[in-house]
Amino acid sequence: MWSFILLFVLSLIAYFVTDNLIPRVGKLCINAGLYGVDLCKTNKNKIPEGTGVVSGCLCLVTNFLFIPIIFGSGLMDTQQFPHNEFAELLAGLLCICCMLLLGFADDVLDLRWRYKVLLPTIATLPLLVVYYVNFNSTTFLVPIPLRHWFGVSIDIGWLYYFYMTVLAVFSSNAINILAGINGLEVGQSVVIALSIILFNVIELGSDQYKAHSFSLHIMIPYLATTLALLKHNWYPSKVFVGDTFCYYSGMTFAVVAILGHFSKTLGLFLLPQIINCVYSVPQLLHIFPCPRHRLPKYSAETDLLYASRTIITKKDMKNSTKFVLNFLTAFHLIDKIEDDECITVNNLTLINFFLIKLGPKSELKLTSTLLLFQVLCSSMAFLIRYPMASYFYDA
Amino acid sequence: MWSFILLFVLSLIAYFVTDNLIPRVGKLCINAGLYGVDLCKTNKNKIPEGTGVVSGCLCLVTNFLFIPIIFGSGLMDTQQFPHNEFAELLAGLLCICCMLLLGFADDVLDLRWRYKVLLPTIATLPLLVVYYVNFNSTTFLVPIPLRHWFGVSIDIGWLYYFYMTVLAVFSSNAINILAGINGLEVGQSVVIALSIILFNVIELGSDQYKAHSFSLHIMIPYLATTLALLKHNWYPSKVFVGDTFCYYSGMTFAVVAILGHFSKTLGLFLLPQIINCVYSVPQLLHIFPCPRHRLPKYSAETDLLYASRTIITKKDMKNSTKFVLNFLTAFHLIDKIEDDECITVNNLTLINFFLIKLGPKSELKLTSTLLLFQVLCSSMAFLIRYPMASYFYDA
Repeated sequence: MWSFILLFVLSLIAYFVTDNLIPRVGKLCINAGLYGVDLCKTNKNKIPEGTGVVSGCLCLVTNFLFIPIIFGSGLMDTQQFPHNEFAELLAGLLCICCMLLLGFADDVLDLRWRYKVLLPTIATLPLLVVYYVNFNSTTFLVPIPLRHWFGVSIDIGWLYYFYMTVLAVFSSNAINILAGINGLEVGQSVVIALSIILFNVIELGSDQYKAHSFSLHIMIPYLATTLALLKHNWYPSKVFVGDTFCYYSGMTFAVVAILGHFSKTLGLFLLPQIINCVYSVPQLLHIFPCPRHRLPKYSAETDLLYASRTIITKKDMKNSTKFVLNFLTAFHLIDKIEDDECITVNNLTLINFFLIKLGPKSELKLTSTLLLFQVLCSSMAFLIRYPMASYFYDA
Repeated sequence: MWSFILLFVLSLIAYFVTDNLIPRVGKLCINAGLYGVDLCKTNKNKIPEGTGVVSGCLCLVTNFLFIPIIFGSGLMDTQQFPHNEFAELLAGLLCICCMLLLGFADDVLDLRWRYKVLLPTIATLPLLVVYYVNFNSTTFLVPIPLRHWFGVSIDIGWLYYFYMTVLAVFSSNAINILAGINGLEVGQSVVIALSIILFNVIELGSDQYKAHSFSLHIMIPYLATTLALLKHNWYPSKVFVGDTFCYYSGMTFAVVAILGHFSKTLGLFLLPQIINCVYSVPQLLHIFPCPRHRLPKYSAETDLLYASRTIITKKDMKNSTKFVLNFLTAFHLIDKIEDDECITVNNLTLINFFLIKLGPKSELKLTSTLLLFQVLCSSMAFLIRYPMASYFYDA
């Protein structure tokens, strides 16, 4: 209990330090040429990019300072020191630190796609080794209706490690894909973090309380520093958070979920990101043309955002393109405009989907609506996780 | 034994990958505006800055990939898994990763001095906790001639942790201060790394073989990736290594020395850096004026480097300045030119000291001479560590 009070105090200090440092580091970023221009504004001010590195570093520093407090009792009697739990925390912080480095390098150097997939994969290795030696549980519980065929649980062996790696890589990139309007990256991360914290607090009473208090030790400083970042990144953004923030956030979620054994629950919290990713597949696989940026289009006249569009030429349209086009049209999932030579459809992102369904919106309203959807998904996750789970699993 | 052969193979691959990646990342650096101009050349080509991040990342990646090999036997039987050794390795890699991040942030954003001292201090915390729970030996052996007064050993308690923090912070900054001419930062790091590796190999036969093989696991990939960097950084430099490399190198040395229990021996290997630091004190404390850069001066006519100088005005010269000036003059440690109004002396760095004692030199010759001095110091370290130590300590 005392350790949580101290954690709150440290996190509160971290909030104020982050809040204070962001404008200063922002100036350094602009001096270093690390800035962008907000495409959804009429003014062309230089806005510092990559400031997620500040909140990330402060989150790490808070965690470092907190180590002697978490392991206080172990430090009194080193014979009883929980080396395995300490290794867990170190492996988690190492993964997070690696992603912070990769993200910042990406913001500065604009790395290629392959590194964005390769490096999180390698960065996850210490985490997998820790998981292997501390738990090595690779079984899934089978839902009651399916037990007739599959038995009570299935051991998927090394595939479980593959699954965890995919989760870490997906999570690291998921927030980066659902991004591009003021406050959305940080806002969705705050909603996910709050959901994880609520879930951890509920589960503190269970026999898995150690795993959940581990998660809280990382998530509370994360939330504090991220809220400070949100203050500066909220509409109208005074700083951009960069890939730094997206990678580091995603990896933080993956770390606590893997070591806290709630990776499936994290999957539920990441539902909007998963939907966005699945919806994007036709463009990511180049079945539809994929422009470099798929941001909504800003109209200075109306001060509203409109869905951005991509053009498919009819002449040499592949069968796969035709099939996907018909499928999406049948389910009313795209906004299609056709003439003799080409078809234009909205770019396949969740942001554009909201715009074609709800009509043009101001940037602030659009962000709020998307965040509301994130909150709804989290609420649904709790519904599935609690009342409904008892139907599928034993209590 | 097998694990060392695999480590060599992995490190060799890391060498070639680093060698291959550096020119590519160099181009990205130039595109990102992360470049400098070589002040000791007549041409004004853009030279990429901060490429130490490539060798640093590759060193980390090699270490990650090597984890399952080091702990192979522990992984077979997880009941016997050495959690404490694993935590040691993770804490070490975490410190190194933090310094890589800090260094790269410094290269891009040009951070203030206070962060350069504060952040390594905090980054060392996981290392100190690991040391505390795994060893917590805070005693120094007293040399035989002094035992009459102090006893066989002195326990300095928490001061030992202060000493290790200072070592880590000093080591992280030491290479950065003895720097500025082509190949010097990387060259000295290679000499120090080779000295550490030789020392570890000699000590593999002792009862401390675990600590020394731990050190080798980190130092061999470090050496391989650093040699690849040296190839591109050697005179005439095609890339600059940046603070990234200096911080990360220094922290790597500190990590292996602290966890390998040879911090005093590392002190001997860092003798040129210590001399440089002590010699710089009058300027660092602003007893003498300290210009932003203290690099030697390049003359395009002769293609030689000359000692750069600082000007002390006689009018309001403080007593402390007078005292230090007289002291350094008495021991022939500076080159002084005096007129009615002011005194000019060489900037107090080891590089300038070599230039005033040996006369102007070409950049290549100067680097080679300084590296030769580093080799001499290492040889002396081995002399002190082996034949002479038996005089001061029991065998």
